[in-house]
Amino acid sequence: MMVLITYDVSTKTTAGQRRLREVAKLCENYGQRVQNSVFECLLDPSQFAEFKHVLEKNIDPTTDSLRYYHLGSKWKGKVEHVGARQSYDPEGLLMI
Amino acid sequence: MMVLITYDVSTKTTAGQRRLREVAKLCENYGQRVQNSVFECLLDPSQFAEFKHVLEKNIDPTTDSLRYYHLGSKWKGKVEHVGARQSYDPEGLLMI
Repeated sequence: MMVLITYDVSTKTTAGQRRLREVAKLCENYGQRVQNSVFECLLDPSQFAEFKHVLEKNIDPTTDSLRYYHLGSKWKGKVEHVGARQSYDPEGLLMI
Repeated sequence: MMVLITYDVSTKTTAGQRRLREVAKLCENYGQRVQNSVFECLLDPSQFAEFKHVLEKNIDPTTDSLRYYHLGSKWKGKVEHVGARQSYDPEGLLMI
């Protein structure tokens, strides 16, 4: 299933800057960055549960937020991209 | 229909900072901010066409990007929020 993940991490403190780096690194492990704080992740339910668990351990819920959008299996027709960076196919090879 | 809009605007130049403010202002006119660069917008097709048109006039497509995710009508069950800021109902009143 395709899950879109967006995050806001407060970087006012060095701890916040560390959390941001950690959240970005985790997202890179599970999906494909499409914008600075936006990742598309093709995950099965157990991968998603694991991902959620580690992500949520790495944010400060009083200042940071995560949003998960379940795009389902027909996600390709639901996404439009305009501007910098190419659209890509996360089910295929990343062409650079 | 619910459309999720995410954007990256390069703020390396003062022109970029101005574009970012403009894009954010436009998004505020059409939807509800849920994270810094993430808006949920309940729009009919003609509103969406108009919104796209004005948004895309205000970015630099060589450095900035917009992504539109069409979440359909059953979007409520597709969204999960964790951490700071409350979930909200864009079809209802904004409670602060």
